[in-house]
Amino acid sequence: MKVIHGGITAPIGFKANGLFCGIKRSKKKDLTLIVSDKPCDAVGAFTANQVQASCVVVNKENLRDGQAQAVIANSGNANCMTGESGFENTRAMAAVAARLLKIRKKDVMVASTGVIGKPLPIKKILAAVPELVKGLNRKGGEAAAAGILTTDRLSKEIAVEFFVGGRRVRVGAIAKGAGMIHPQMTVKSATKAPADPRHATMLCFVTTDAAITPAALRDALARAVDKTFNTITIDGDMSTNDMVLVLANGMAQNRRIAEKTKEFRLFSRALETIFLFLAKQMVRDAEGATKFVEVNVKNAGSREDARRVARSVASSNLFKCALFGSDPNWGRIAAAAGYADAHVDPWKLQIFLGKELVSKKGGRVMKQAVVLNRIFAQKNIKVTLDLGLGKYGATAYTCDLSTSYVRINSAYRT
Amino acid sequence: MKVIHGGITAPIGFKANGLFCGIKRSKKKDLTLIVSDKPCDAVGAFTANQVQASCVVVNKENLRDGQAQAVIANSGNANCMTGESGFENTRAMAAVAARLLKIRKKDVMVASTGVIGKPLPIKKILAAVPELVKGLNRKGGEAAAAGILTTDRLSKEIAVEFFVGGRRVRVGAIAKGAGMIHPQMTVKSATKAPADPRHATMLCFVTTDAAITPAALRDALARAVDKTFNTITIDGDMSTNDMVLVLANGMAQNRRIAEKTKEFRLFSRALETIFLFLAKQMVRDAEGATKFVEVNVKNAGSREDARRVARSVASSNLFKCALFGSDPNWGRIAAAAGYADAHVDPWKLQIFLGKELVSKKGGRVMKQAVVLNRIFAQKNIKVTLDLGLGKYGATAYTCDLSTSYVRINSAYRT
Repeated sequence: MKVIHGGITAPIGFKANGLFCGIKRSKKKDLTLIVSDKPCDAVGAFTANQVQASCVVVNKENLRDGQAQAVIANSGNANCMTGESGFENTRAMAAVAARLLKIRKKDVMVASTGVIGKPLPIKKILAAVPELVKGLNRKGGEAAAAGILTTDRLSKEIAVEFFVGGRRVRVGAIAKGAGMIHPQMTVKSATKAPADPRHATMLCFVTTDAAITPAALRDALARAVDKTFNTITIDGDMSTNDMVLVLANGMAQNRRIAEKTKEFRLFSRALETIFLFLAKQMVRDAEGATKFVEVNVKNAGSREDARRVARSVASSNLFKCALFGSDPNWGRIAAAAGYADAHVDPWKLQIFLGKELVSKKGGRVMKQAVVLNRIFAQKNIKVTLDLGLGKYGATAYTCDLSTSYVRINSAYRT
Repeated sequence: MKVIHGGITAPIGFKANGLFCGIKRSKKKDLTLIVSDKPCDAVGAFTANQVQASCVVVNKENLRDGQAQAVIANSGNANCMTGESGFENTRAMAAVAARLLKIRKKDVMVASTGVIGKPLPIKKILAAVPELVKGLNRKGGEAAAAGILTTDRLSKEIAVEFFVGGRRVRVGAIAKGAGMIHPQMTVKSATKAPADPRHATMLCFVTTDAAITPAALRDALARAVDKTFNTITIDGDMSTNDMVLVLANGMAQNRRIAEKTKEFRLFSRALETIFLFLAKQMVRDAEGATKFVEVNVKNAGSREDARRVARSVASSNLFKCALFGSDPNWGRIAAAAGYADAHVDPWKLQIFLGKELVSKKGGRVMKQAVVLNRIFAQKNIKVTLDLGLGKYGATAYTCDLSTSYVRINSAYRT
């Protein structure tokens, strides 16, 4: 597998476009369209929040048949907690795109991100779709990546290729997310989902020309999301709009990838690589962030315990303030481990800042302050907790909590 | 019941003192002693964090017999994650106080608050105890209240009195807490507690001259803590040192208060009143706080669901940044309700900012921006979520997340 140039238009048969339709005051791009030449096997992962944007609810319904062919997405407004009319607007976005693209309405996925509770300026969106469709092209991945950004400073895209039985297969993706990031996405058939509220969010759209069975696609997505996006946190706030969509059009003409095969492992690894890259980019690009932090938990009693401890530490406001201040205050790490809903024994716990062991046997290990200060002054910081209780591990990614984060989010709507 | 002047020395038979022993760089008081003339029935509530300071572990052991007579407490150092020597230091504090007071070692409770993982400057503490004991007096409540503060800007004390069968009974208390505040304290006999890590914390020491049975005292404490301290959050970080201690010396000579009596309800109400006052003071005095916020949840399907939703909203960083910015961004409230581990149906949810209904039926209720802005610009803000699912309610208290909070906690140790 190798990383190649481009994003969602790198795989065969995908076109994309992005433009400004009038939602964002900044006049930056705020509408994106991705289309496949042929109908795709498709699957999605959606937020576990009980308050879900209409696009989440509608996509789940429309994905029941495992088919999709396009994605239309707006930024600057989450179209969440917007009542029945929010649902109508979601359906209207799909309908106008479908009509102009001459495909089925239910094969158009919809995504929104931005402020919650404010009516979507649907007229501006609908009026812009013809131009959006007209501008679709094989080099439109970059514009599409820009059209979904909110507080992100950087565009996020990647593509990889690998070979399946001599056939070249490509997978491309774009993503956004810088705040209201604490995803917990699940890949399930549409259940009796509740409905609808607001904000920044993580979105990720994946295109591939691989031929792959629906079951394999679903399985690969579920595993990859769990190992990547579900391990990051920026502010502990789970969004109402988090969504990952994968569209596979089979145009690489490889032998269809099925579960439990070598090819499936290849495809899964590609998805994981892409997601991990994008997940880390979100954390690096997080609102106000000055540090990128990896929290590793080792030797936990169970995998779930490992995840919970990693996420508890990665979510601790006090730990994250210490990171911002470059203060190697490991006591806050121990405290956050101790209040995780997981088994932790402080007498067995070992804490490492970078490679330096700073705590064991319920106490500190003397280190020169200058050494620890140097570690915490870096842009990239690794913290490791060895729980000494079992054999399971997990990693969480986070950033510091800065005065800028507070400033950005205290004036989000103004 | 009426509120009277004073704090822990208001009840008969209690003396107290507080002084500077050399821990705090600011040279403010950092050592406190409270003593009863007679042995007391005593009970404590302690942090649910698995990483617990040695004082928490040792007090639990020593409270097994339900007896105590004194409390010695230092601020500026949590004596947590300080290994075996931390335990020795806790015991040494109790031992020297016991010797000078001529009481049993195991009847001296110990408390610490401050930085985690740093050895306690035990010599300074032990050297100061003789002067601390010498200065004990009936008017020492104020000095004692000052001796336990860390980042608190204000001293926290209160006393009330009421009558039990013609006998005047008094209850007094002091408390501290401004950061690392997300208490979840339990009143249980010492279980196989884990041990030991670091930081700010909430402490509350209660004195009373009431005669009350151990079972009644325990029951009253458990209920009152649950309704008050366990409903506040400042930063979501549960401390390793949270502790509430109640000492009842019976010197009011009332008929001993037993459970399920009118007198028990009176005593319970007194404790609740005191705790709620102190809990609210902590939130008002929270690190960097500019707003005091009450989150009310109504009509939840269960009491636990009501608590979880209230606490989820009160803990949301995005909601708290909006409070700081006086931005009436109710979508963040809906999102935080939706990710609570409790049943929430967005179509049934109603959200009120102050008395203004801003959201119902999964959408917004139009209000003039100027009206909502005025509500969020106030110092005291009430937010109500009517879940429309049942009959249970709960309240959580919180503050905003400000740039000052981040500044204070990014330079805590320097």
